[in-house]
Parts: sequence; structure tokens; C-alpha cells
Amino acid sequence: MAAVITLLTDFGLQDSYVAQMKGVILSLSPLSRLIDVSHHVPPQDIATASRMLREIVPAFPDGTIHVAVVDPGVGTSRRVVAAEIAAQLFVLPDNGLLSQVLQDYECRECVVVENQQFWRPAISPTFHGRDIMAPVAAHLANGVCLAELGKPAGDLQRLADKHPSGGSLNPKQPRIVAIDHFGNVQLEGSFSPPADSSLRLTGPLQAGNSGPKLETQAMRRLPCEGLCVPVVSTYGAAEPGELVLLRGSSGLWELAIVNGSAAKTYGLTVGDVLSLD
Amino acid sequence: MAAVITLLTDFGLQDSYVAQMKGVILSLSPLSRLIDVSHHVPPQDIATASRMLREIVPAFPDGTIHVAVVDPGVGTSRRVVAAEIAAQLFVLPDNGLLSQVLQDYECRECVVVENQQFWRPAISPTFHGRDIMAPVAAHLANGVCLAELGKPAGDLQRLADKHPSGGSLNPKQPRIVAIDHFGNVQLEGSFSPPADSSLRLTGPLQAGNSGPKLETQAMRRLPCEGLCVPVVSTYGAAEPGELVLLRGSSGLWELAIVNGSAAKTYGLTVGDVLSLD
Amino acid sequence: MAAVITLLTDFGLQDSYVAQMKGVILSLSPLSRLIDVSHHVPPQDIATASRMLREIVPAFPDGTIHVAVVDPGVGTSRRVVAAEIAAQLFVLPDNGLLSQVLQDYECRECVVVENQQFWRPAISPTFHGRDIMAPVAAHLANGVCLAELGKPAGDLQRLADKHPSGGSLNPKQPRIVAIDHFGNVQLEGSFSPPADSSLRLTGPLQAGNSGPKLETQAMRRLPCEGLCVPVVSTYGAAEPGELVLLRGSSGLWELAIVNGSAAKTYGLTVGDVLSLD
Repeated sequence: MAAVITLLTDFGLQDSYVAQMKGVILSLSPLSRLIDVSHHVPPQDIATASRMLREIVPAFPDGTIHVAVVDPGVGTSRRVVAAEIAAQLFVLPDNGLLSQVLQDYECRECVVVENQQFWRPAISPTFHGRDIMAPVAAHLANGVCLAELGKPAGDLQRLADKHPSGGSLNPKQPRIVAIDHFGNVQLEGSFSPPADSSLRLTGPLQAGNSGPKLETQAMRRLPCEGLCVPVVSTYGAAEPGELVLLRGSSGLWELAIVNGSAAKTYGLTVGDVLSLD
Repeated sequence: MAAVITLLTDFGLQDSYVAQMKGVILSLSPLSRLIDVSHHVPPQDIATASRMLREIVPAFPDGTIHVAVVDPGVGTSRRVVAAEIAAQLFVLPDNGLLSQVLQDYECRECVVVENQQFWRPAISPTFHGRDIMAPVAAHLANGVCLAELGKPAGDLQRLADKHPSGGSLNPKQPRIVAIDHFGNVQLEGSFSPPADSSLRLTGPLQAGNSGPKLETQAMRRLPCEGLCVPVVSTYGAAEPGELVLLRGSSGLWELAIVNGSAAKTYGLTVGDVLSLD
Repeated sequence: MAAVITLLTDFGLQDSYVAQMKGVILSLSPLSRLIDVSHHVPPQDIATASRMLREIVPAFPDGTIHVAVVDPGVGTSRRVVAAEIAAQLFVLPDNGLLSQVLQDYECRECVVVENQQFWRPAISPTFHGRDIMAPVAAHLANGVCLAELGKPAGDLQRLADKHPSGGSLNPKQPRIVAIDHFGNVQLEGSFSPPADSSLRLTGPLQAGNSGPKLETQAMRRLPCEGLCVPVVSTYGAAEPGELVLLRGSSGLWELAIVNGSAAKTYGLTVGDVLSLD
């Protein structure tokens, strides 16, 4: 079987952790195709990994097995689950990692990974990615069914929505949900610019309140306040250095500087709120 | 078909962009072998990617398909092309990425990638790597011919030679064209040391004039000025910490510090000119 | 043959060096499966690479071929060797890289890689990884025997044990042997906490004496001195931010901060000595 198995972790690439998982998979399923999604998820950042899982589903073939190991609860009572969603399989801790995928797709089947016959013989309490999830993914690649892994999982953990709709999302004040390698700033899904061809950045910018000790939200004004931000279709539609608003490749709107970094230029971070008018 | 498909981008590894491209390729060509050249090309740095394509050609087998996505003009009128060069195939934007490969090899055939039958059904204007180049590479791996992709491309974009031969390259004043992970400093191809066994670094060093606002070239003297730099065959032929000149593995001469970083020690960057006597 | 070939280097991922090795391997052994262990070994750090080789052996299937290129002596008289250990094969410079693997496993056969029939036709004196080790690994994947590569190697280089047992390792003062991506601090193998459920960090901390110019060992007291460090089974067994001691996934004991970085918080580096009581 030449199943595709993807790996998404917060392990980084300096250690041998990722390779250990791959060795375990290839020991059991020698022909499976291993694809790295990313290993640079910030440590313990389940929300980022959840967003990335959602991004990759449309690009992968039916039957792909996604293994996601962002697992601060490893070795505790948190469950490991395996699910079929969108004709693809997911093996991961039940800690909210599927939250975003489940906004787009229905879960067809989900089981608790508890049948130790499909685990490695010895289990490190700190590395279930290698000792439970990797071998289970390999067995799925070899044709094992979800039902063989364990009993139905019932409800899965979802990430608490930090910004409940009760707060009535203001489409003119979108929150930053991601910043990519280029410094392009992705805005939350509810945001959509009006039909005309530009927006005004009116600021203030509200800093994210993700820190536990931040009790009053900091406000600060962008140096670009009052700037008219053209809505364009692609980066090259404006001049290098220009600030633009465009629809990114995953469907979210993003603020970008052509051939530059909007995030660095304006000191933006995930969780900040922009004010666009 | 187990064709080899390489990927060279400026996407970095923190996002899911590279994985999305791989998912698209494996959806269409499940057995193709995916090899990362690098995803750490500096953003929009076509010249660096062009040099890296030249470096890898001699190492890869006939029939390899190279996909290079350093594409600041994505979504604009710049063309996507596919070419056969040196019995290998290239799929990339027509923005100069092939400049260096074409200094070494002749282009046997080159077409414009315009037949949408080989694209994904929906095309994001900001991610042709995923929606056009990845599926086209997969179809090439599956046996599609260049001629099926589109009409002949004619002349390709070449990077403007920043240092035209009219300026008569001074072989004693080579420009730095690359600095590698070890801090080894690669000198332009026209440089070759004389037959004797050492050179004198006479300085001054001329800083690169790549910045648009730099009108007068800065000069600065290296702390190693006057140092006699032995020409050696390999790093271990000198003592740790010693500055040496040697022929690197891609054929270019390089200035290196044994078990150290010449670039960091002397503050060198790409575009700087050294003075060797 | 679908042999697994792993690559472990200090090349980083910004250059094309790793891809050049992979191209050479796939040119000779098109079906071999290439797995990156890591390319972020600190430059010339044979000890770290040696530790990583030891970590991965238990995870990989019989017949895996490990190519390790941390090779400051490339092009000098240092030998390239190929060895069979633990039913896996190793191709690497004879510079101590196998030191740690050989603490756990016996070498079944080891030869000098000298039969140029299995090398590339032209050999760069600075890149034996590409021109000797990569093609040799490919030939091994294709079924070539060790004995065909060259004569028996005899004794291999071992890394000098910096902390000889003559100094009688104090189990209460373990040295830091590694720090991972999460900032978890791994202690030397001889350390094992007593049976009770916590240790006291009594400090002082002794800074590593790895630097050649450091003649007197620096001492410094940890800001956490006197802190009682609970011995736990896994990270999630304590509260976020708490300092714990636990057995890591490779069997070594480690000092960790739950959802944080023990190394950054306390400024620890490899070679430092902790005092636990």
C-alpha cells in the first residue's frame, strides 16, 4: 500500500523526534509516503495546528492519513483518537486539533485509539506520537479499519472560541488569525471587505489579550493609520512596498506588503484586532 | 511512474504551503518521488533560486522534474513556463529563474503553461505553485509531453546581469555571489586564483550596492587586510580558525574559515567585493 | 529495492547540499526511501550527531542505511567507513560519529570505503557526502555487500570521553548532554533520581568547560536553587510553568518546565552540571 501519511508537529527539526516517528511508520508500512506538513508549529499551539489541518485537507487525496502531534497532555488521561473526515483519516490527541476541520467537514466516524495491539510494545509516557500515533497510522495505511482501533469516541474536544459570536464580530474590526512566513497577515474568516476597491485603515489597533496577565487591553495606533488600502487580486497588482488587502490562497483575506512584511513593518501579531473602515 | 519531482521555493517551512503543493502532486501522480531542494530561499530572491537550480542539475537523474516557485509576479501577466534542459524538466514562472541553468545548458524545448486542462479546476491568483505548477509537474510525471501544455515560449526572461562584462570583471576583485550555511563565502565564477599557493587579501572591501538608496558605494577595510590567505584543497588542510581559499563543491572558489564562519567573522554579505592580490 | 536511507548532516536547509546528496542517491537507487534525521546538527558537532544516531536506531527497520555527514576532516586522510550494527548499515566518516551507537550495540562488520567503483566519477575534496557516501549508500541499497566496498576497517575512532569515569561521576551532579527544541534539558545517562518523589535543586550550577580558553570553571547559582523538583511521569502531570524531572522518550532523565523552556528560563547549556540533592 502506498498510502500518503502526513506529519504535523511542534517538534522542530533539530532533534530526531520526527525521524523516530518516520522510522516507526516505515517499519510497519514500508511503502507509505511520508509528507511533512510542518514541524514548526509553536510549542503546544493547538490552535495553529488546527488551522493548518484545515488548510491542507483540500489539497490531499482521499485516503490520506494525517498524524498531528501537538500534545501538551501526552501521557495524561487525554484520549488519542482516530477519525474519518472528508474521506481522509486523522490520528491525533483529542485536544481540539480537529476544531477547524470540523467547521468545514462532518466527521463520518471517530474512535478512541485504545487497542494496544496496534501500538508499539513499550510506550513512553512522553512520546505517544512515536509509540501510539505513528504505529496506528501505519496500521491504517495497511488497511486496518477505524473500528478495530477502539470504541466510538463520541464528542471530541473543541477549542473554546475565544471570541464568541455573542460579542458580535465586527466585520470592520477583524482579528488577526495567522501570520505567514512572508509576514502576510491573515484576518478571521468572518471578515470580508466591501465591494468597493479600497478600505481605510482607521486604527486604533487593539493588541491581542492572549497573555494571562494582560487585564486591560492595550491599544496602539498604527503608523499607517488613515492609509487607504487598495483591495487587489494578487501581490503583483500593486507596487513593491505598497500595503494591500487581498484574498489569500486559503480563502481568508489578508493584509500584505508587496515584496515586504506587513507583520514586521507594523509590529502585528496573532490576536491583534485591526480597524478597517 | 516513479518520477522524481523537486521543489524549490521561498515559502519557508512554518506554513502549510509546501505540503499543499505536495498533496496536489500526489493526488495526481501518487508514485512520484518528492524531494525538497530548499524552501529557505530569501523571499522573492530569484537570483539565489536561479543559482541553486544550476547547482542541483548535475546531481539529479534524467527525467527529474524541478518545480521552482519564487514568484513575486504570481497572478500578473508573467508567464508560467515548462522547459526541457539537460534531459531534465523545469516548471516555473518566467521571471529569470532559469538564467543560471541556461548559462551551462541549452534549452531543448520550452512551452508556455496555458492549457488549463492540466491545472487545478480553481486557481487562486496568489498561489500558482499549488494550482498550476504542482499539477502540471504531476502530469509531466505521468507522461504528458511539453507540447501538450501550450505553445512554444520563445525567449525566456533572464536576470539582468548586474555586473556587465563591459565593466571588465577584475579577477583580483571578485564579487561574493553566495554565502552558505557554514558562512563559507562563494566568489563569482570568473574568479580564479593564480597558480601560486597563496593570495594576499589587500582590501578595501566594497559593500554591495544592491540597496536602492545606496548611491555611493561604501568602502571598508577588512580586519584581515594584508593577511596572506593560503590556497588549499579542502578545509581540513589548514588549522581550525584559519582563513583559506579553496574550490568549493560546485566549482566556485570560496573564502572559508576552517571550522568557523568567514561571513560572520568579517561581516561579509552577498554583493560585497573582495580585493585579493 | 525500497531500502530506507536516512540522512543526518550539519548542512542546514538553506543550501542545496542535502538535495544534491538525494539526487545522487536517486540516480543510482531510484526506489530507495529517503528520510531526513536532521540537518541542523551544529556545524562540526560530531558528539551531537553521534547521540542522534543512537536515538534513531531503535525506531528504524532492519536494513536501514544511515548516512551521517558531519565531516570537518573531509578531504584529509580521515577514512570513510561503512558498518553493520544492529542489523542496520552506517556510512560515515571515521571521526567518532559511531561512538554512542557502539555503546549500545556491537559492530558486526566494518569496512573502509575505498573501492572507487562505487563512488562518483569525480570527487570534490570538500563534499564526500555527495561524491562518496551518497553513492555508496545507494549501492548498499541496491544489494552491494560491505566486503565489496573495501578492506576491514579495524578499530574505529571514538570520541574522547570528556568526563572519564576516573572522575567518578556523581549521580547527584549530572551533566547536561542535550537540550531539545522545547528547551527540555537531558541529563547524562548515569544519572537516575532516587526512589522518592522529588529532588531538591541545591545548586551551584557549574558552567561547561567545553571552551578551550576557559581555565577555571565558572560557577553560578540558579534562580531556582532550593526549589523542590517533583519527579513525574510526564509533562502534563504537573501544572504549566512548573519545573519537573522526568524520564524522556530516549531513556535519559530530563529537567523540564511544563509548557515552557527549562533551558531558556535558567540559561542552561550543554555541558553545564546541575546539583540535585
